[in-house]
Amino acid sequence: MYPNDGFRELKRHECLRLMAEVPVGRIVYTLRALPAVLPVNFSLDGDGAVLLRTSATSELVRAIDGAVVAFEADDVDAGRQSGWSVVVTGPAGVVTDPAEHERLVRTGPVSWAPAPQEVFVRIEPELVTGRELVGGRTLYGVDLPA
Amino acid sequence: MYPNDGFRELKRHECLRLMAEVPVGRIVYTLRALPAVLPVNFSLDGDGAVLLRTSATSELVRAIDGAVVAFEADDVDAGRQSGWSVVVTGPAGVVTDPAEHERLVRTGPVSWAPAPQEVFVRIEPELVTGRELVGGRTLYGVDLPA
Repeated sequence: MYPNDGFRELKRHECLRLMAEVPVGRIVYTLRALPAVLPVNFSLDGDGAVLLRTSATSELVRAIDGAVVAFEADDVDAGRQSGWSVVVTGPAGVVTDPAEHERLVRTGPVSWAPAPQEVFVRIEPELVTGRELVGGRTLYGVDLPA
Repeated sequence: MYPNDGFRELKRHECLRLMAEVPVGRIVYTLRALPAVLPVNFSLDGDGAVLLRTSATSELVRAIDGAVVAFEADDVDAGRQSGWSVVVTGPAGVVTDPAEHERLVRTGPVSWAPAPQEVFVRIEPELVTGRELVGGRTLYGVDLPA
């Protein structure tokens, strides 16, 4: 599929720029010892942290608060066999500071299904990696004749 | 976001039917002790196993052969705040039987970037879970007035 895992590594600033273009990503965490993956809408904070908004009593929050998680976003064109994927990995935590919470009520992600008591979760961008996914005629970095 | 993690659980057959509609999913695995996520094109085998096609020497194959992985696919409409997500979890393994390999050359996923030596990877569908993601006006299973 990707010979030599044939992709171009993206720089951090490219990763964050691309992530800002899509409304939905996937949070990757552990639940009952198994990998769990859930698409969620998100926004990016100024420092590149991923922000989620969820019910204070959701199973999601209980699973990720205080845990290291990965957050992936991508845009893949199956027809053109190309696209990109970015992963932000770091500790997730509920925002507990009231002033921060208020700031995020104004500037953070909207809630798709409002709940009586909502919290924001920040995923610290400790590791930001990204790939440009290359299909078609590129093999080992050399363009093949069509 | 999803109060009470407000989603409807999908039955196994619904999960597999939906997965068959999308060309790309994401493999979730562990690489150097960290979560890794990579969009890949795939197909489903008759029994619901996820099939990938990749270079025999890819870092991906080395990381997942013999490991329990998760494979996620989704279709999310951010505008309508709705969609679905399916996760297949199970052991991944390179297909080593020559007859099986030949069958998959004919019927399995195509390679986006052909390599000299390719292998197929099967992810056994030991656990198949899916959710219909519900946004908008549904709260705790009750439709709110608009």
